[in-house]
Amino acid sequence: MKALIYRGPGNKALEDRPKPTIQDAGDAIVRVTRTTICGTDLHILKGDVATCAPGRVLGHEGVGVVDSVGAGVSSFKQGDRVLISCITACGRCEYCRRGMYSHCTTGGWILGNEIDGTQAEYVRIPHADTSLYPIPAQAEEEALVMLSDILPTGFECGVLNGKVEPGSTVAIVGSGPIGLAALLTAQFYSPAQIIMIDLDDNRLEMAKRFGATGAINSGKGDAAEQVKAMTGGRGVDTAIEAVGVPATFLLCQDLVAPGGVIANIGVHGTKVDLHLETLWSRNISITTRLVDTATTPMLLKVVQSGRIDPARLITHHFKLADILDAYDTFSRAAATGALKVIIET
Amino acid sequence: MKALIYRGPGNKALEDRPKPTIQDAGDAIVRVTRTTICGTDLHILKGDVATCAPGRVLGHEGVGVVDSVGAGVSSFKQGDRVLISCITACGRCEYCRRGMYSHCTTGGWILGNEIDGTQAEYVRIPHADTSLYPIPAQAEEEALVMLSDILPTGFECGVLNGKVEPGSTVAIVGSGPIGLAALLTAQFYSPAQIIMIDLDDNRLEMAKRFGATGAINSGKGDAAEQVKAMTGGRGVDTAIEAVGVPATFLLCQDLVAPGGVIANIGVHGTKVDLHLETLWSRNISITTRLVDTATTPMLLKVVQSGRIDPARLITHHFKLADILDAYDTFSRAAATGALKVIIET
Amino acid sequence: MKALIYRGPGNKALEDRPKPTIQDAGDAIVRVTRTTICGTDLHILKGDVATCAPGRVLGHEGVGVVDSVGAGVSSFKQGDRVLISCITACGRCEYCRRGMYSHCTTGGWILGNEIDGTQAEYVRIPHADTSLYPIPAQAEEEALVMLSDILPTGFECGVLNGKVEPGSTVAIVGSGPIGLAALLTAQFYSPAQIIMIDLDDNRLEMAKRFGATGAINSGKGDAAEQVKAMTGGRGVDTAIEAVGVPATFLLCQDLVAPGGVIANIGVHGTKVDLHLETLWSRNISITTRLVDTATTPMLLKVVQSGRIDPARLITHHFKLADILDAYDTFSRAAATGALKVIIET
Amino acid sequence: MKALIYRGPGNKALEDRPKPTIQDAGDAIVRVTRTTICGTDLHILKGDVATCAPGRVLGHEGVGVVDSVGAGVSSFKQGDRVLISCITACGRCEYCRRGMYSHCTTGGWILGNEIDGTQAEYVRIPHADTSLYPIPAQAEEEALVMLSDILPTGFECGVLNGKVEPGSTVAIVGSGPIGLAALLTAQFYSPAQIIMIDLDDNRLEMAKRFGATGAINSGKGDAAEQVKAMTGGRGVDTAIEAVGVPATFLLCQDLVAPGGVIANIGVHGTKVDLHLETLWSRNISITTRLVDTATTPMLLKVVQSGRIDPARLITHHFKLADILDAYDTFSRAAATGALKVIIET
Repeated sequence: MKALIYRGPGNKALEDRPKPTIQDAGDAIVRVTRTTICGTDLHILKGDVATCAPGRVLGHEGVGVVDSVGAGVSSFKQGDRVLISCITACGRCEYCRRGMYSHCTTGGWILGNEIDGTQAEYVRIPHADTSLYPIPAQAEEEALVMLSDILPTGFECGVLNGKVEPGSTVAIVGSGPIGLAALLTAQFYSPAQIIMIDLDDNRLEMAKRFGATGAINSGKGDAAEQVKAMTGGRGVDTAIEAVGVPATFLLCQDLVAPGGVIANIGVHGTKVDLHLETLWSRNISITTRLVDTATTPMLLKVVQSGRIDPARLITHHFKLADILDAYDTFSRAAATGALKVIIET
Repeated sequence: MKALIYRGPGNKALEDRPKPTIQDAGDAIVRVTRTTICGTDLHILKGDVATCAPGRVLGHEGVGVVDSVGAGVSSFKQGDRVLISCITACGRCEYCRRGMYSHCTTGGWILGNEIDGTQAEYVRIPHADTSLYPIPAQAEEEALVMLSDILPTGFECGVLNGKVEPGSTVAIVGSGPIGLAALLTAQFYSPAQIIMIDLDDNRLEMAKRFGATGAINSGKGDAAEQVKAMTGGRGVDTAIEAVGVPATFLLCQDLVAPGGVIANIGVHGTKVDLHLETLWSRNISITTRLVDTATTPMLLKVVQSGRIDPARLITHHFKLADILDAYDTFSRAAATGALKVIIET
Repeated sequence: MKALIYRGPGNKALEDRPKPTIQDAGDAIVRVTRTTICGTDLHILKGDVATCAPGRVLGHEGVGVVDSVGAGVSSFKQGDRVLISCITACGRCEYCRRGMYSHCTTGGWILGNEIDGTQAEYVRIPHADTSLYPIPAQAEEEALVMLSDILPTGFECGVLNGKVEPGSTVAIVGSGPIGLAALLTAQFYSPAQIIMIDLDDNRLEMAKRFGATGAINSGKGDAAEQVKAMTGGRGVDTAIEAVGVPATFLLCQDLVAPGGVIANIGVHGTKVDLHLETLWSRNISITTRLVDTATTPMLLKVVQSGRIDPARLITHHFKLADILDAYDTFSRAAATGALKVIIET
Repeated sequence: MKALIYRGPGNKALEDRPKPTIQDAGDAIVRVTRTTICGTDLHILKGDVATCAPGRVLGHEGVGVVDSVGAGVSSFKQGDRVLISCITACGRCEYCRRGMYSHCTTGGWILGNEIDGTQAEYVRIPHADTSLYPIPAQAEEEALVMLSDILPTGFECGVLNGKVEPGSTVAIVGSGPIGLAALLTAQFYSPAQIIMIDLDDNRLEMAKRFGATGAINSGKGDAAEQVKAMTGGRGVDTAIEAVGVPATFLLCQDLVAPGGVIANIGVHGTKVDLHLETLWSRNISITTRLVDTATTPMLLKVVQSGRIDPARLITHHFKLADILDAYDTFSRAAATGALKVIIET
């Protein structure tokens, strides 16, 4: 089968690989019908992710059809249409019992990282019973690719951890795909204000179309001051960090109101300054989270009800044969306007 | 009346002052019967608290008897025995309605800071209806002085924010009075382990008598490693920072388990390093809080039930005339073994 | 001044009464600009409310302008535009500190019940600081009359107690004004389904326009069976009782899913059967609540943000001089189509 | 092997049966070392449990050693010492993902009910990975038999649902084994008062030794009045129903305070009266629950920490050969003083 292979820093290729086979009683082999590319895949290609060795099939998102299952799989059978979670969960360990699937002792984020992933014609999914989700009969498959990772990430790490609630004020720092996913799902809770902050006016325009009530270009003035002005001088109840660099985390500290939450989504590569000399008395919380995809069933229901259309995050389509073009388009997002790209196999 | 006056950095004196009078319909004048000294008073005397001007009567803790009340006070009358909260709360503003009294727009921590405090024969208490608490008939007054500040601080900022629960594991970094207050109140929730960490073996011994299940002298080896060894390699569910310097906050980052909480109590004077390059994916929370004393009614009930004896925190007694000796004893705690000192007026 | 007086069962009149005066330091006198009629007023007129004596000015909802305040009032002054809460709260007692204003030991629901109410040119509001809310500058006054009682009642007793959440399923039994208030505010949380149940097709039509995803006329077939059919056989996560008779409470027991909540809003006059022989093992909750109006600040923010328009509940307008006509229209709602009627003074 | 067989209403026998075998990839066969008898077993013997057919091996509690496992079991292997949960959970269905194992679509309470149970030398446990728990190395096996059912039942259905908290007031109606399990676990949260109510003075004496702060014989006077007198006229924050008849549920309605919870544990055979004409405005909750055993890991930690000794519930010991005597002793608890009886195989 064809598969996109990480060949070491700066190097990738579409190669022929043997179709994966059942290795454990809990495994399923899934024929991938649609996958996508994540910002994390670009991190891997830079050599930033030590757990991902050269030779790995990349990709941790996608939908497909069950091809075969191991003896211990009871929830799925050949032919079932399934959503693949980016997080593999055994459902048995102490972390899984607490819904903290990201820290599953034999799973977590392993797809396209420690084991071969979804940017291929077939993928092996361990712990299939608790790592796949059935696709409802009338569902639009393509939209559901957004539920593998980006939508639960924005929702769990940003919106739920950030305790967004009716009438509250929210600032989202970073208007890329993950910030927009947080923006879409924050609206589940009817906050009074959602202010998007970014350096790119095009992304801010898009954010307004996605429901932002305000937009600030942080390259053109003091963003914290503008947020204060928009919120009666208080700052926001929820500051969502969706970039992953020290400057944006610092900005969140400046714009969070007393009693508020800084909900970090960004993948950080270095330490940051935490201004406890100010914040110690401000009754704030800071949260971090690797997505658990514990809310996938909830998100499936909301999508099915029509209250949200995650397909709005999809900007481009490619065939698997053209996945190198897809990577090119996705990696030059500022120029191409790419949010999420769909790859059909 | 006699009062302890802050006369600028490094300078304090017991002086004669006029007895305070009602200035606002919501005021009460309270004859102080017992007060105490807080670590924050020492901070003020170092010149570290900009809001506290020379000439101020210090002190924000105590019990006493109502001497007179303004026209708007309905819950208290002359002769009532009362507990004075360190936090003044109007009960009306948006923060007070959320129980976040520390951020009351016309109150908060103002006693012995922005207005004259309790280390005197009388004190004026604004917003008396929502800043004083009736002392139950049979209650031991002296023990209740611990409910003005230290016990709710340990409980709210450390235990409640830290989400201590039955069977969980707790580490408390700092075994001074505030760490011990956290230790006492953490036991309300029956955690499986409470590990105290300090540099002083005497304090650690005391912590064991107060209920600690383990004690680590962080000056004699790697405290984080020892905590990991005591918790099956995982680290603790709740790490309580009760010191207020970068090194102890850093230690908390090293010993918190995935999914855990770092609950900060310490008053920090400088920024700290936050290692988001590790923590971004560990599903942790960090909380800060200036005590709200919102749990004072609950704490009064627990103390009345006999499940906790806060008088155990009291090590020394002085008369108001000898308050300079009391400051001396309290400020040399390592040598004197002082935890909390009671000053009778 | 003119005032609508309860003169005993079945008897009411518009009479001349002296303008109320300040009786307590915490009082405010408010010139009422708009008020409305509640179903509870009809209960009083039937003689069902023992606490309301003949001679009482009715009404517990409205907006107006502060005319004068007592010495202890600090948040409001003459000329301020205010929203009057149906619940009077001292902000000081144990219940108020828990946000359970409905059970304030010197307040609760007393307006137009134990003391004179709002269906008059002026009204005296005790505990004004914590029982009135400032009206934002640009706000539409008329819509805010819905925030005195009906909107917080639907929201607190139905939606919050019912734990409505994204993707969940909701049934609301009763499509009158209070059921519609629950319907409007349930949408703050983006449930997947909201099924309205009533005996009146007109009301069900209105419910669909207000956002219901399904409607069942319980007089034309088995409502519980239909709800099961609409929810994959499970029943609903949240069943909101908005009528107050045994039959509707029984229906809620039939249609709630395992793990679900029955949130009672209805004012019941008799005991009901609770089928614990079935429900003991179904992991459900049943909640009751007299509205606390603790969420009024939140609701004001949501209304100001434009996410909800409570004026949609208003169907008729009258002058105070014509309040008897207003009562007639409101009491014959099936014929007149009345939901809420506004009375201008 | 020997097994205790239900032979129809009023009829049981110790019979020889074939040793069970693996039927499904997720099964484990466990050699039972200790089991016990539950009040529910007596219900079955009366013919009250329709799902339990004659010929069934009874028993849903116990500890043992793994004898063999199916191909899909990954957490346990032959020789592991295990605690058997009374609830069988697949860990995969929607209910299991929410921690509501009692309603597992292919599990729930099936042991000794729909499939053969633990009062035998061997038992087959479906979904073994998520229905068994490893016994810690130093643990006392016998005490852990209390964690199969009775302790999580008292804790989850009574204490957690009842929201017991520090300083709160609790009444437990019924001082049998399940009421005592609630009493033991309520103390995890340091309530100020726990008042036990029963008709039997001996059981009330035992309750005091288990930590009750008050005891009321409801056959000798008005229990609700006495509870009010003990709680300053308010009633209790948490009323736990641990009997299962209309009179005790009615009593709970009389003694719960405004804002309180009635947490039902009792297995009810008939409907009860719910006095909504009073309770509609009292802001209370009523909860029901079939135990989920979701807290078994937490309870294991608390027991291991030594904060609770569940072995105090054990009053008698028998060999499996004498299980008919054990049933006799257990069923005549008033005369024999039996709480829980241990049966060794």
